[in-house]
Amino acid sequence: MTAKYGFYYEEGHDDLLFMDQTSVKLIIERLSSPPTPFVLYSLNQFRQNIDKYQNELHKLAPIRGRLSYSMKANYNPRLLTILKSAKAMLTTVSGGEMQLALSAGFEPSSIIYNGNGKTDESIQMAIDSGVLLNVDSLFDLEVILHYARQLNKIANVLIRVNPNLSDSNVHAYNVTASKTSKFGTNIDELEPIYKLIEQNDDKWIRLFGFHCHLGSTISNTQIISGCVKKLIELFNTKRFPHLRILNIGGGLNIDYKRYAKRTKNDDEEHIAIPTIGDYIQSIKDSIESFPHSIELVVEPGRSLIANSCVLITRVLGQKQTGSIRQLIVDASMTECIRPALYQAYHHIDTVNSLSTEERILFDIVGPVCESGDFLGKQRCLPKILKRGDFLAVFDVGAYCSSMSSNYNMRPRPAEYALDEQEQIQILKKRETNEDLLRTYCVA
Amino acid sequence: MTAKYGFYYEEGHDDLLFMDQTSVKLIIERLSSPPTPFVLYSLNQFRQNIDKYQNELHKLAPIRGRLSYSMKANYNPRLLTILKSAKAMLTTVSGGEMQLALSAGFEPSSIIYNGNGKTDESIQMAIDSGVLLNVDSLFDLEVILHYARQLNKIANVLIRVNPNLSDSNVHAYNVTASKTSKFGTNIDELEPIYKLIEQNDDKWIRLFGFHCHLGSTISNTQIISGCVKKLIELFNTKRFPHLRILNIGGGLNIDYKRYAKRTKNDDEEHIAIPTIGDYIQSIKDSIESFPHSIELVVEPGRSLIANSCVLITRVLGQKQTGSIRQLIVDASMTECIRPALYQAYHHIDTVNSLSTEERILFDIVGPVCESGDFLGKQRCLPKILKRGDFLAVFDVGAYCSSMSSNYNMRPRPAEYALDEQEQIQILKKRETNEDLLRTYCVA
Ligand SMILES: Cc1ncc(COP(=O)(O)O)c(C=O)c1O
Ligand SMILES: Cc1ncc(COP(=O)(O)O)c(C=O)c1O
Repeated sequence: MTAKYGFYYEEGHDDLLFMDQTSVKLIIERLSSPPTPFVLYSLNQFRQNIDKYQNELHKLAPIRGRLSYSMKANYNPRLLTILKSAKAMLTTVSGGEMQLALSAGFEPSSIIYNGNGKTDESIQMAIDSGVLLNVDSLFDLEVILHYARQLNKIANVLIRVNPNLSDSNVHAYNVTASKTSKFGTNIDELEPIYKLIEQNDDKWIRLFGFHCHLGSTISNTQIISGCVKKLIELFNTKRFPHLRILNIGGGLNIDYKRYAKRTKNDDEEHIAIPTIGDYIQSIKDSIESFPHSIELVVEPGRSLIANSCVLITRVLGQKQTGSIRQLIVDASMTECIRPALYQAYHHIDTVNSLSTEERILFDIVGPVCESGDFLGKQRCLPKILKRGDFLAVFDVGAYCSSMSSNYNMRPRPAEYALDEQEQIQILKKRETNEDLLRTYCVA
Repeated sequence: MTAKYGFYYEEGHDDLLFMDQTSVKLIIERLSSPPTPFVLYSLNQFRQNIDKYQNELHKLAPIRGRLSYSMKANYNPRLLTILKSAKAMLTTVSGGEMQLALSAGFEPSSIIYNGNGKTDESIQMAIDSGVLLNVDSLFDLEVILHYARQLNKIANVLIRVNPNLSDSNVHAYNVTASKTSKFGTNIDELEPIYKLIEQNDDKWIRLFGFHCHLGSTISNTQIISGCVKKLIELFNTKRFPHLRILNIGGGLNIDYKRYAKRTKNDDEEHIAIPTIGDYIQSIKDSIESFPHSIELVVEPGRSLIANSCVLITRVLGQKQTGSIRQLIVDASMTECIRPALYQAYHHIDTVNSLSTEERILFDIVGPVCESGDFLGKQRCLPKILKRGDFLAVFDVGAYCSSMSSNYNMRPRPAEYALDEQEQIQILKKRETNEDLLRTYCVA
């Protein structure tokens, strides 16, 4: 029997929220009056997600399947140490991320540097250290070649292609491979890039394969298999001797609605979310007949880390405005901008035992002076919730901490985990006022 | 003749962008290869905006008009020193902002602390130091009274009311006074708050007046005068002896479209923006007949600081995707989230002389790996723009720096101004990678 990891409600335990084998209530008690909000990490859940991906990727044999974590989802360095032990790769999107990956001890050949607008410094860093670069466009390739010559080194690259596929359920901001997307080069407009690489092949550049990322929060594996097929066609051109890597990006959605039936009064459309197994299977189906001895890379962010974290917040009060009952909490859009930016759903629920209490509908809003500062709308929660009670905002592992701001001069929150001995481990300190003012120079 | 301040194109000067009396080109040269993006402040423009407000407020005599800067727009401490010399007040929305205001030497009675979700610590700080608190709701009042008793002090308060008025042209996230808004108490539901204040009046609490903030980017002064009239009615109840302050909040829009005809091919709807003079005049019209010797407070953020800053960015390249011509720059949603979050317009234009060049339509996008990372769509800019050329994103003084993030591990940018001797003054240092990792604890 495998231990249960992550965040869940244990029946027969008074409806308490658990993280792994410990109740969140107990963790909060042991933190004794922690400033809120703060983030709790189940590193076991994260490890389990990595294992799940790697086991499924194994089934692609003889094709080698590799996992590359998309750091932009959450760049907490503690996660990188876990990924390193798991021999995962890293996908980075800036000089800062690449530098952190290198200093965390990842092999340069296990780091991918992707971006539609790379700076001179970061291109030099990538070429100099041997990081794999995604060629995004013709101008990007020209700059890469310029610095390869200047550094007298060979740039190792993939080409990011845009296959013009997208999932109709995805928010426009999360679609990255429609015909007018800002990323990559249209799959039928690659010739100028091919030419330039051929002219410099094995001298200043080596083309190792193709990359594609269809977007984020994808719940339709059909477009994934469609994408794999399109990339495979590119291998068949046989113009480049080193072709080996087929990187299909990340994008798998997670079940944000997980416990929605606890807190929603209506049963709104619930899109079925494919599992990691379904996702890799859809790749297997389209790749099986492929003759090359390739390496298939997936680079998930969200589906590796999102469900490994909750944001713990205190209720500040209740308030009626017209027909709306508001629950005001001390977490906000500064820690979790996804509801404001993408109208995204995050499950919000109790930490302590309140299962027998009457539930009513609330809008859950933060203290930031901005109407967009809401965390959830029309959620069923216990009527008796009062100042000081704890709530959990689920699935904040991805695109929350990494997108957080100091708007309203709010310090970014502390992040905690439990170590192997179930002792509290601090992964990130809460910012102080001094931290917020550190770079300012008053005259 | 008064000197020309702020950012403008000077005819007869080769179409160069000027800041006050200096070309931005020259400032960039003097910074010698500055990392981009960075922010340039015309502190003279900011001073001029303050003067404009204070001169207009003067015309309300015998009513005393006071200016209270809304710090959330931009909390750079350098701005606070200017506001202090101008004897302005400050409106703060968190413990952090209040503390910065106090440590910048503002009189507690010149500081307002507003918020729908105030923490225990910040309420104590406000009462203890004598800062004016906006009572947002009944529960907020109860906590304030609790701490007034505990600290054995009198809390000085305004009541934030919600008059249920809004400007139909304002983005939903910027509307703050519709019937279901999260801020304040509906104007017809004040009785429980009145009662509780009466019970404790002059013992634990003193009601000095009313506050209302209708929302942001307001271009319709009629709703401002409507609001003033509604607040005046509240004074007429005569239940509270200390009533003196009528605070109508901020919200005046600015002309973000300023030079739009330079960069837009079509003439889309251009909403007329009232001047600061128009705005105060609309207050004067509705307040003139009012008998009380009141103090009228306005608390603008945007219209004081937005037009005092530009974001300078370098072009990284051009790229055609389908029918769209993209101009990729090194600034992004991390420095200016308003286009992504509110579909807001910021003018984007050249720094150097390119006036005779052919212009074509571009989407202007940043390097962040996110489709929402755009700064402007379909803008007419010189066809010859190439890697290394500078562009200016206008009107980034408000709600840009204060909402900025480190998404994609991007350091937040440096901020510069010119001092009285036209020497470059640094207001904020660019973050280093070390700054970004300072609070993380790797295990
Ligand atoms: C190139 C690339 N790979 C992978 C990802 C990860 O996506 P997700 O977190 O949805 O799996 C992203 C995120 O947008 C990306 O831009
Ligand atoms: C209470 C209050 N006052 C003033 C302002 C400033 O608004 P603006 O920057 O639009 O003038 C705000 C901003 O939302 C606010 O919440």
